Amino acid sequence: MSEPLGNSKMFKQVTLIGIGHIGSSIARALRKFDLVQRIVVSDSNLEALKEAEKLNLADAYVASAVDAVKRSDLVIVCVPISAYADVGAAIAKHLAPGATLTDVGSVKQAVIRDLGPHVPEGVHFIPGHPIAGTEHSGPASGFAELFDGRWWVLTPLPGADAAAVAKLKQLWEKVGCRVEVMEPSHHDQILAITSHLPHLIAYTIVDTAAGLEESLKGEVIKFSASGFRDFTRIAASNPIMWRDIFLNNREAVLEMLGRFTEDLTALQRAIRWGEADKLEETFTRTRAIRRGIIDAKQA
Amino acid sequence: MSEPLGNSKMFKQVTLIGIGHIGSSIARALRKFDLVQRIVVSDSNLEALKEAEKLNLADAYVASAVDAVKRSDLVIVCVPISAYADVGAAIAKHLAPGATLTDVGSVKQAVIRDLGPHVPEGVHFIPGHPIAGTEHSGPASGFAELFDGRWWVLTPLPGADAAAVAKLKQLWEKVGCRVEVMEPSHHDQILAITSHLPHLIAYTIVDTAAGLEESLKGEVIKFSASGFRDFTRIAASNPIMWRDIFLNNREAVLEMLGRFTEDLTALQRAIRWGEADKLEETFTRTRAIRRGIIDAKQA
Repeated sequence: MSEPLGNSKMFKQVTLIGIGHIGSSIARALRKFDLVQRIVVSDSNLEALKEAEKLNLADAYVASAVDAVKRSDLVIVCVPISAYADVGAAIAKHLAPGATLTDVGSVKQAVIRDLGPHVPEGVHFIPGHPIAGTEHSGPASGFAELFDGRWWVLTPLPGADAAAVAKLKQLWEKVGCRVEVMEPSHHDQILAITSHLPHLIAYTIVDTAAGLEESLKGEVIKFSASGFRDFTRIAASNPIMWRDIFLNNREAVLEMLGRFTEDLTALQRAIRWGEADKLEETFTRTRAIRRGIIDAKQA
Repeated sequence: MSEPLGNSKMFKQVTLIGIGHIGSSIARALRKFDLVQRIVVSDSNLEALKEAEKLNLADAYVASAVDAVKRSDLVIVCVPISAYADVGAAIAKHLAPGATLTDVGSVKQAVIRDLGPHVPEGVHFIPGHPIAGTEHSGPASGFAELFDGRWWVLTPLPGADAAAVAKLKQLWEKVGCRVEVMEPSHHDQILAITSHLPHLIAYTIVDTAAGLEESLKGEVIKFSASGFRDFTRIAASNPIMWRDIFLNNREAVLEMLGRFTEDLTALQRAIRWGEADKLEETFTRTRAIRRGIIDAKQA
């Protein structure tokens, strides 16, 4: 570990804790852009670990992160949020002074609550969240281009080391992201409406369809091209990850869900009472939002 | 009109009434597969008509369908459902004996209610609905491959001419569709859950986002890649067409909406009370539906 870093290399050794869809994509991107000297993958799920090795995603594969983090200047937690507290307790006292500890979790306040207390003095704890992903799970589903043109949000705590934040920002820019720094609570509120509520609704409508009598259910699949299949893609996302997101961003999700239900009830009433103008007005307004997304190149 | 039909040609003259996204796609597909001798496009919207001519979609362009239908052995109504009654009243007595009258509307019982009473004896009225489309509108947005691998549902009335139904079925098979014949009410029920409810929900959540305070709204667009943007695609669909669908399939939509709301309320409660198992169970169940859609090659 004493040889000098190559020109493009920003960290000596990165430990990825959790090698699912996102962890795998990070490993691939770090390699593709030649950003780190050595990648260690750790996962308590031995099947995933074996698959990662078969895919040749890293330089070393360990079931426990404890030894790996000792020699790492960057540690990235990529596990479901419910596992953060245990991960924190396990690795805390082994983290190297001056190392950066970050993550990819979708609820930043929960991450700070569960991981934060374990972080020792001298370690740079910089929570993060790439706004990227697909409905697929597991090491084989990752790909280096996942982050290309997407946002990566960082939510450093007050008093965080500016140089460490800048370095992490630069790393994620090099995998193709635009990086935004914001307050954890603001992040959680934005994600509640842009990500968590859409997933909850998609899960619900697909489950509503799953509950139909058998004669209808087969035809729902057959004729899914008419709108439904877009929801099923979202509703095929990792169940554990999403269970944890809803439980850990409860307040913001329930708030956005309340607004959604009010709006849905108003449209339901408009349909029942034949209020054509109200429906047309609403459906015209929503087109402008789509236009905004196309203009922002996020479509 | 007296020359014999070419080998691949199934109709002498088709009149398309309405040249939006679907009408335009049909015109292009009929030409691509060389299925008709002559295409006449009619639209009361002169701008759309001019655009269709500029795109060279047909052999003739007329503001009123009255003269065109006289000499047509196939007439296809491609207008929003609220215009069906007027179209029916206008063209009814000009339809040629032995001609086939079909349409592409998303609610078959409403089409039969509004168009049916106008159809004279000797004309084959065979309502239809291609399960295909995009969020785009207007003649320029159509494309010949829209129907490739998709379903086209026909809902002929009791006593319909079997030969005429078989011929129309063959026509839509030649543009790339699989054709299914079913009861109008059954069609409307299936579409309520696979298409109408998903669109209503997508319109609602996008409108909920549009109603957020300005500081959040810009960020909803910026971070839309996290799930929200899939909804905005659907919610960019033609407002008039969708207004008409909801008003004309009211009972089935309200029934499915009722089921959806019950399921959503149950998940909301599970989030509030921290029922992890219930959430995980639901999210696992929905994955199976996605798998069914992939297996049915509708993904």
